[in-house]
Amino acid sequence: MNDNYPSKLLEEAVNEFAKLPGIGRKTALRLVLHLLRCDASEVNLFGQLVMRFRNEIQYCPQCHNLSDNGLCVICSNSSRDKSIVCVVESVRDVMLIENTQQFNGLYHVLGGIISPMNGIGPSDLSIDLLVKRVSEGQIKEVIMALSATLEGDTTNFLLYRKLSPFNIKTSTIARGVSLGDELEYTDELTLGRSILNRTLLVINL
Amino acid sequence: MNDNYPSKLLEEAVNEFAKLPGIGRKTALRLVLHLLRCDASEVNLFGQLVMRFRNEIQYCPQCHNLSDNGLCVICSNSSRDKSIVCVVESVRDVMLIENTQQFNGLYHVLGGIISPMNGIGPSDLSIDLLVKRVSEGQIKEVIMALSATLEGDTTNFLLYRKLSPFNIKTSTIARGVSLGDELEYTDELTLGRSILNRTLLVINL
Repeated sequence: MNDNYPSKLLEEAVNEFAKLPGIGRKTALRLVLHLLRCDASEVNLFGQLVMRFRNEIQYCPQCHNLSDNGLCVICSNSSRDKSIVCVVESVRDVMLIENTQQFNGLYHVLGGIISPMNGIGPSDLSIDLLVKRVSEGQIKEVIMALSATLEGDTTNFLLYRKLSPFNIKTSTIARGVSLGDELEYTDELTLGRSILNRTLLVINL
Repeated sequence: MNDNYPSKLLEEAVNEFAKLPGIGRKTALRLVLHLLRCDASEVNLFGQLVMRFRNEIQYCPQCHNLSDNGLCVICSNSSRDKSIVCVVESVRDVMLIENTQQFNGLYHVLGGIISPMNGIGPSDLSIDLLVKRVSEGQIKEVIMALSATLEGDTTNFLLYRKLSPFNIKTSTIARGVSLGDELEYTDELTLGRSILNRTLLVINL
């Protein structure tokens, strides 16, 4: 679209929206024109909330999850198992795992995974904080829940090396055939891994 | 997604983004977490621009197009033909038609089309302003460039009735087979209309 904006302000607003990930210029224009049809008070609320969110949001000093004030809701929850820590890439992954309701330990948010292609090295992640947490002795197991990609495996390996001096269990989430998937449509790598990492059937009749 | 937000502020920000058209809660979360990775200064600029856009944008008093100050760039352009006016639904349609570079007259932005389903009646549109413009006598032709839908046709009919007391030409943009389309895949209504509204072939050899 060769754009002829009737207004400089409109063009600037479209430019700002088009900077968001996954939002092209056509979608940005649609969003901006939608704002015009909203009440001014609603739009002001939106703009202020965006700024307030960025300026006031805090990170949990223990696990780097988002927090409104000091320790996050998970770290400060006394009913959670403080001896087991699940290492994830981002805040979104904490929410995804919480939604499964299968984990009752604490988290550690790395803030990314090692990716030389994107210029992310070990020093950009909160790895030292994790090592410090483990060195305090309360943690018995660290579960790595990173993406099943080359970057995830690299990060797993580095964390494994950094944590090996401590007397703890390290594990990684299972990789295998997704529930509901048919074998016919599962890729060979995943199928191969699912055979290597088979689990014992224990059925109580 | 059954959401467990680690922070109230995060949840509020996601709620605000999810109000935008075409943005679901998953996309909203992705956008909000993207803002966290941006510089605070950039995010503040974004928030302020959203508010400034909504509060400072003006409508051209003549055609209701967007404008930064007074008459819009099209109405104030002295090289445009002021005797022909193209009626469109929204600011976006002005931009679309401008991009074709096939029209050198002025516009009139209705601000919507008649749609009883969505509670939009004639009084919600800038129809009276159009009638007033035509009554001033400078306009010789009004082209309706509305969507080829029931709502568009209803609006066309109403405008035609309102403008019929004046001695002007009224026309509507051509409906027919899209350029590049094969007849095999054109729907019957469009094909039928394209035969009724055939245009004379005038080839200068």
